[in-house]
Amino acid sequence: MTITDKDLRECSVHLTEDEQAVEILDQTRLPGAEEYLILRSPQEFFDAIKTLAVRGAPAIGICAGYAMYVLALGTEKEGAAFAGHMRELGEYLISSRPTAVNLSWAVRRMQGVIDANTASSAREMRQLLLQEARAIHCEDIEMCRRISEYGLSLVKEGDGILTHCNAGPLATSKYGTALGPMFLAKEQGISLKVFSDETRPLLQGARLTSYELQRAGIDVTLICDNMASIVMKNGWVQACFVGCDRIAANGDFANKIGTSGVAILAKHYGIPFYTLGPTSTIDMNCPTGEDIKIEQRDPDEIRSMWYKEPMALPEVKCYNPAFDVTDHTLVTAIVTDQGIVYPPFRENLAKIMKKDPV
Amino acid sequence: MTITDKDLRECSVHLTEDEQAVEILDQTRLPGAEEYLILRSPQEFFDAIKTLAVRGAPAIGICAGYAMYVLALGTEKEGAAFAGHMRELGEYLISSRPTAVNLSWAVRRMQGVIDANTASSAREMRQLLLQEARAIHCEDIEMCRRISEYGLSLVKEGDGILTHCNAGPLATSKYGTALGPMFLAKEQGISLKVFSDETRPLLQGARLTSYELQRAGIDVTLICDNMASIVMKNGWVQACFVGCDRIAANGDFANKIGTSGVAILAKHYGIPFYTLGPTSTIDMNCPTGEDIKIEQRDPDEIRSMWYKEPMALPEVKCYNPAFDVTDHTLVTAIVTDQGIVYPPFRENLAKIMKKDPV
Repeated sequence: MTITDKDLRECSVHLTEDEQAVEILDQTRLPGAEEYLILRSPQEFFDAIKTLAVRGAPAIGICAGYAMYVLALGTEKEGAAFAGHMRELGEYLISSRPTAVNLSWAVRRMQGVIDANTASSAREMRQLLLQEARAIHCEDIEMCRRISEYGLSLVKEGDGILTHCNAGPLATSKYGTALGPMFLAKEQGISLKVFSDETRPLLQGARLTSYELQRAGIDVTLICDNMASIVMKNGWVQACFVGCDRIAANGDFANKIGTSGVAILAKHYGIPFYTLGPTSTIDMNCPTGEDIKIEQRDPDEIRSMWYKEPMALPEVKCYNPAFDVTDHTLVTAIVTDQGIVYPPFRENLAKIMKKDPV
Repeated sequence: MTITDKDLRECSVHLTEDEQAVEILDQTRLPGAEEYLILRSPQEFFDAIKTLAVRGAPAIGICAGYAMYVLALGTEKEGAAFAGHMRELGEYLISSRPTAVNLSWAVRRMQGVIDANTASSAREMRQLLLQEARAIHCEDIEMCRRISEYGLSLVKEGDGILTHCNAGPLATSKYGTALGPMFLAKEQGISLKVFSDETRPLLQGARLTSYELQRAGIDVTLICDNMASIVMKNGWVQACFVGCDRIAANGDFANKIGTSGVAILAKHYGIPFYTLGPTSTIDMNCPTGEDIKIEQRDPDEIRSMWYKEPMALPEVKCYNPAFDVTDHTLVTAIVTDQGIVYPPFRENLAKIMKKDPV
C-alpha cells in the first residue's frame, strides 16, 4: 500500500506541518472536547504519555519515535555528546510509563539510529531520525491494514459486529486492530453495523470506540456491557471482533475485562468470535492463559469514578480486575498481520511464529 | 412465623409510631444519604411513588395500602360520601405510576374493604383499613420469608452467591426475594459471600444491593457487570440468585437487562442458576418468553446519566432495553413462596399453579 503524508497527518498522533513538533488529539478530553496538544519539550512529551493524553501501545510508540526526532532539533550538540544527551532524554521519556513496552521499544529503536551514525552531521542525523520515526508510523499503518484486510474477509455487507473496549485508530495509527475491518469496510463502501460495549469501569467503548466510529460515519450503537446477550439473541450480531493484550502459545488471550464473557455468549448463540492483533502480541514463552498475571485496579473506579457523587458506599468491597483471560476453546480464529490462525492453536500459532509448539 | 411491630417498623416503608403517617427511606438519595420522608397528604404519596422515592413492586403495594388508611384519617366524610372520596384519592394514587400492577392491586384491595363496610362508623372503618394495610404488609413478609427459606436450602455455609439488580428488602418488605436467602442466612449465623453486579445503566446493584447488604453486615463485593465471567471462572460462585418480573408458563422469565447473560455464563461454568419470586409472578397466560414485550428506555441513561459530563457523543445511537428474557433451558430451578420448581417447567409450573400445562 502507498502511505501518503495525508494518511500520516490524519492519525491522532502526527508531526505538525512544519515538522518541528508533534500534534496529538488529547484523549483525556474525549468525547466532550476535541482538543489538540502541541508537544515540543521533554516535559510536554512526558506529561502527554503519563496523563494518557496519548494511549494505546502502538500510538505511544509512534509518539515516542517522533518525540526523539523533535527533541533532537532542540540541541546543538553533536557526536558522542549528542548521543549521550539523547540517551538521557530517552530514559526520561521511558520513565513516564515504565510498563509500556512499545514506549521503550520505540525509544531504543531511535537510539539505535543515533548510535549507528555518530559520525553524521547534525543535519544528516535529523534526517535519519525523521526517516526512522516515519518508518515506525508507516509500519504500524501497514500492520493495521493487513489485520483489517484479514478481518474484513471474515464478514460481509450488512453484517452486525460486536466489539468490546477500544482497539481503533486512536490507540494505533490508521484503521486500528479490532476496529480495523470496520474502518476499511467504510473506505470500500461496505456497510457494517457495529455494537460497541461501553466497557465498564473506564468506559473506553463509550468514550473512544463509539466516538471514533461515529465521527467516521460508521453505523454504531452503544450498549451497556450487560446488553450483549440480548443483542446477540436478537440476531443482530454475525461476528465479534476484539483486540488482545497478550496471546499465549495455546491461543488463550488476555484482553480488557469482560472479553471472556462476550466469548461465552458468542459461543452460546453460535456466533464466530475473533481476536485481532499483531503477531508481536503472541507470546510463545507463555504456555497458557494461566501464566498471565491480571492487574487489579483501584476499587474507586467502580465505586465512584466518573460520577457526580459516589454510587456505592465508600466501605463496599469491589473486585476490579483490568483484564480477563479468554479460553482458546471459545475463539473461532486469531486474526494477525501475518494471516488468520485457526485451531488447533498450539500447532498453528507455532507455525506462524516459526517456532516449535510448546 | 410471628411478625412483630418491630419487624414492620424496620421495613423501608412503615407507619409512623403514632400511626398518623407513612415513613419511607428515600431511595432516590441512596447510597449517599439515608433520608426518611414522612408522607401524609395525597400529593406527598403521589410524588413519592412517581419519583421512585419508593420503588419495587411489593414495596409500592405496601405503601399504597398504608396510604389509603392514612388518607382516610384526613376526612370527616362517612358512608357513600366517604367511599366516593376514597375512590377519587385511590385513582389519583394509581395515576402516579399507572403500569405498577401492585399499586392498583393494593388500592383496589383497600377500596374493597371500604365498599364492603359502608355501614361502619368512621372509627370502625379506620380500624378495618389499618388491619387491611397491615395484612398486605405482613403477607409480603411471609411470602418473602418462605422464598428465603427455600432459597437458603439450596446453598451452604461459605458459598459464594452472584446476584444481579436489586430484589431485596428495599424493593419488598423484609428479606426480599433474590436477596432473601442472604438476609435469612445472616439471621441464622450462616456466612455467605455475595457478588453484586452493579447493573448498568441504572446501577441498582451498586446503589441498592451493595448498600443494603453492606448495611446488614453481609459480606458483599461489588463488581461491574462484565466481571461476572472472571468471578465465576475464579471458582468464587456456587449459585446465582436473581429476581424476576414475569415468569412465562414454560419457565422463560423476564428480569432486569443482563440477567440472561448471567444465566449463560453460569451454564458455561456449571454453576446453578435460580430465579426467586412469588407465584404471583408466574403468568400462565403467557406461553413463552417470546410473548413478553420488553420496555425500551431513554438512550441518555447510557450516554450521560449519573455522569459529570456525557461519556459518549450526544448523537451516538444507544440500545437500552430495560429487561431481557432468560430461556428456561438456562434455569436450574424457580424458587417461589410455594416451593422450588424444577424442570420440566411447563408441567411443574402448571402443577404448582393448579392449572393444566399450556
